[in-house]
Amino acid sequence: MRKNNPANRGDSFTVAPIGRIHTPFKSATGTPIQGAARGGAQGVVELLPELVAGLKDLSEFERVWLIYLLDRASPTQLVVRPFMDAADRGVFATRSPARPNPIGISAVRLLGVTENRLLIADVDMLDETPLLDIKPYVPAFDSFERSLAGWYANKSAASVVADDRFEAREQN
Amino acid sequence: MRKNNPANRGDSFTVAPIGRIHTPFKSATGTPIQGAARGGAQGVVELLPELVAGLKDLSEFERVWLIYLLDRASPTQLVVRPFMDAADRGVFATRSPARPNPIGISAVRLLGVTENRLLIADVDMLDETPLLDIKPYVPAFDSFERSLAGWYANKSAASVVADDRFEAREQN
Repeated sequence: MRKNNPANRGDSFTVAPIGRIHTPFKSATGTPIQGAARGGAQGVVELLPELVAGLKDLSEFERVWLIYLLDRASPTQLVVRPFMDAADRGVFATRSPARPNPIGISAVRLLGVTENRLLIADVDMLDETPLLDIKPYVPAFDSFERSLAGWYANKSAASVVADDRFEAREQN
Repeated sequence: MRKNNPANRGDSFTVAPIGRIHTPFKSATGTPIQGAARGGAQGVVELLPELVAGLKDLSEFERVWLIYLLDRASPTQLVVRPFMDAADRGVFATRSPARPNPIGISAVRLLGVTENRLLIADVDMLDETPLLDIKPYVPAFDSFERSLAGWYANKSAASVVADDRFEAREQN
């Protein structure tokens, strides 16, 4: 959305994409799990041209948060079997896309800014993903190196890729 | 939203809060800037009771991401004067709430889970903030201790609190 008003304080809220994320990944199957852990794949953020003034000063950051819609996720599952595990987990204890509000966050590497386009690396989202927000990655706010990671502890995403378990079926 | 369908792949998308975040902060003025940097203040996440199954396994994580609506933010400003700075910055290079899609993310400390309630610390959001998502904080995905932080470098949020510059006016 572009305007805030008190009506939006109620039960639902409309967001409008501010751009698209272009990546090499056309479908979930084979897409890296959490790009940061995997490293490498590049993509391009294409911001709506009318918002380009908002990118001022962004190029000085090494990483940015992309907030985006998981627009091809399957319907909500409150308990899921994650890609990285062999047990069922509560969806809020996973990064699975099958969430009540299918919003994803990824801290990607920012390689460059040219007009309304960001060249990025460590991407893990599908091609043409609708972008909702860009925020600077600030270690003082975002980095907790030793934070205990529950069932993720001692697991590595580096060798894991996704399959289609959380992808919407055509008939959805 | 609770269902995904292809119509949602278009220009706008409706999200529905999955709960509320209760904090000590009734208005922006005096609220900490980025709770993690500040430390301390406690709050309670109240999840919709019908979603409680999604919290399974969450208590094993030390921190969680809260994704929420900045429902009392002022209208979008593409260039803002941040609380922590004396210069104008592009909004996407700041954590200011006056964003095109007013969505906030905070990595809060998880102190406990009781039924559909999470006791949390390091909060920096206003009381009754609508919650959109909870995700586990996983250092392998989220922690980049040395990531270059642009204009935030060498600034400390520890002694900064907000004022009303990004808060919606009553007549909005």
